[in-house]
Amino acid sequence: MSSIRIGLGVDFHQLVEGRDFWLGGVKVPHHKGALGHSDADVLLHAICDAMLGALSLGDIGVHFPDTDNTYKNIDSKILLARCAQLIGEKGYGVVNVDSTLCLQAPKIKSYVPQMQAVIAEILRVGVEDVSVKATTTEKLGFVGREEGVTAHAVVLLEKIAQ
Amino acid sequence: MSSIRIGLGVDFHQLVEGRDFWLGGVKVPHHKGALGHSDADVLLHAICDAMLGALSLGDIGVHFPDTDNTYKNIDSKILLARCAQLIGEKGYGVVNVDSTLCLQAPKIKSYVPQMQAVIAEILRVGVEDVSVKATTTEKLGFVGREEGVTAHAVVLLEKIAQ
Amino acid sequence: MSSIRIGLGVDFHQLVEGRDFWLGGVKVPHHKGALGHSDADVLLHAICDAMLGALSLGDIGVHFPDTDNTYKNIDSKILLARCAQLIGEKGYGVVNVDSTLCLQAPKIKSYVPQMQAVIAEILRVGVEDVSVKATTTEKLGFVGREEGVTAHAVVLLEKIAQ
Repeated sequence: MSSIRIGLGVDFHQLVEGRDFWLGGVKVPHHKGALGHSDADVLLHAICDAMLGALSLGDIGVHFPDTDNTYKNIDSKILLARCAQLIGEKGYGVVNVDSTLCLQAPKIKSYVPQMQAVIAEILRVGVEDVSVKATTTEKLGFVGREEGVTAHAVVLLEKIAQ
Repeated sequence: MSSIRIGLGVDFHQLVEGRDFWLGGVKVPHHKGALGHSDADVLLHAICDAMLGALSLGDIGVHFPDTDNTYKNIDSKILLARCAQLIGEKGYGVVNVDSTLCLQAPKIKSYVPQMQAVIAEILRVGVEDVSVKATTTEKLGFVGREEGVTAHAVVLLEKIAQ
Repeated sequence: MSSIRIGLGVDFHQLVEGRDFWLGGVKVPHHKGALGHSDADVLLHAICDAMLGALSLGDIGVHFPDTDNTYKNIDSKILLARCAQLIGEKGYGVVNVDSTLCLQAPKIKSYVPQMQAVIAEILRVGVEDVSVKATTTEKLGFVGREEGVTAHAVVLLEKIAQ
């Protein structure tokens, strides 16, 4: 395998009343939260999938099936830490992560530095190596109607000198 | 041009009754299939576009127009092989491919190894250099209503020593 | 930071009557145009976000807020030039950009070379380092209903020798 690898992640969750809204490992105050088997952190799931995909290690559905009670309401930071461990065991580390959250509300700008810090610590990179961006869909589609939230992530990995 | 290049592909197809469902070069048993001029293999199309895009060679609509009867019902593996040939002629090879299929049904997990083998053989890389992931959209949008299927792919190319 | 970095951008705009339709820095003749605070060039916005994201510099909403009258109807080429300046100040340059426009109409194939030339000049790279691809969504979703347009972009940056 080459010394550098690229990965991509895309994830989707419904937004419903009565759930906490976890994004990038941070609980964001909102009248709705994302529905899912785990804590439904759409951003961490997209990053997990990008990391797994870069090394062809399957996807989060394979590693953490939503039919397994082990992962019921699990903190997605634990899933991200496991993905970091998996790529480390393959001899790779993260160069940088870039991500975009697509959600109509709320504004998450003030939570971004905290998300970067949480993710960077788990991935053992600097906060400048973790980017979290956000956009609305300009009221278009299910994101625009506030029925759901999506996240896209890319990651660059490199072989770590042994 | 630099020795390393990045490419991105996104593709969409409607799902209709009475069509075979080709995904990643594999016929997946399902009551619906993807509609298109070719065999409508959304995953191979996204990978083709990522490869062409990495070297600014246009897109699959430019290379294989859906107004050209040559490509009527064509096996998209042939299109992928042509894209591999095009990047080879430019002196580049694939480092790795990562992709995500967004579809509500059926579960494609058991077909992924076969998809990886088919794609890897065409691209002349190892199966560990081809990642195929899948996610539902949690019943959201046209994918969630099983009206369509989408695929995202990224690819990393590198200059081959001559 | 590593010598090579990856970035990702995704953007969305509504399509409405009575607006010019700017795509990739080019005015495309059409009965609708994209709605936004700036000229609403969805492709340039996705590329801006990919460049900012690669170096964790925030997103276009942070740099060019739509609540700031400075950016009212602004030419997005100016925003792209500012992003190029920002990454240059960090010591990075663009290796290549790949992008996909998702829109149902009009056909933009004949405008692509002009878009590539405009973007390449701003980013100070060759036209062969800027890829603009396009796809319909096969009439699916808000893009298929011609209510909106989306763009995806990835960018590879590298440290410039000082």
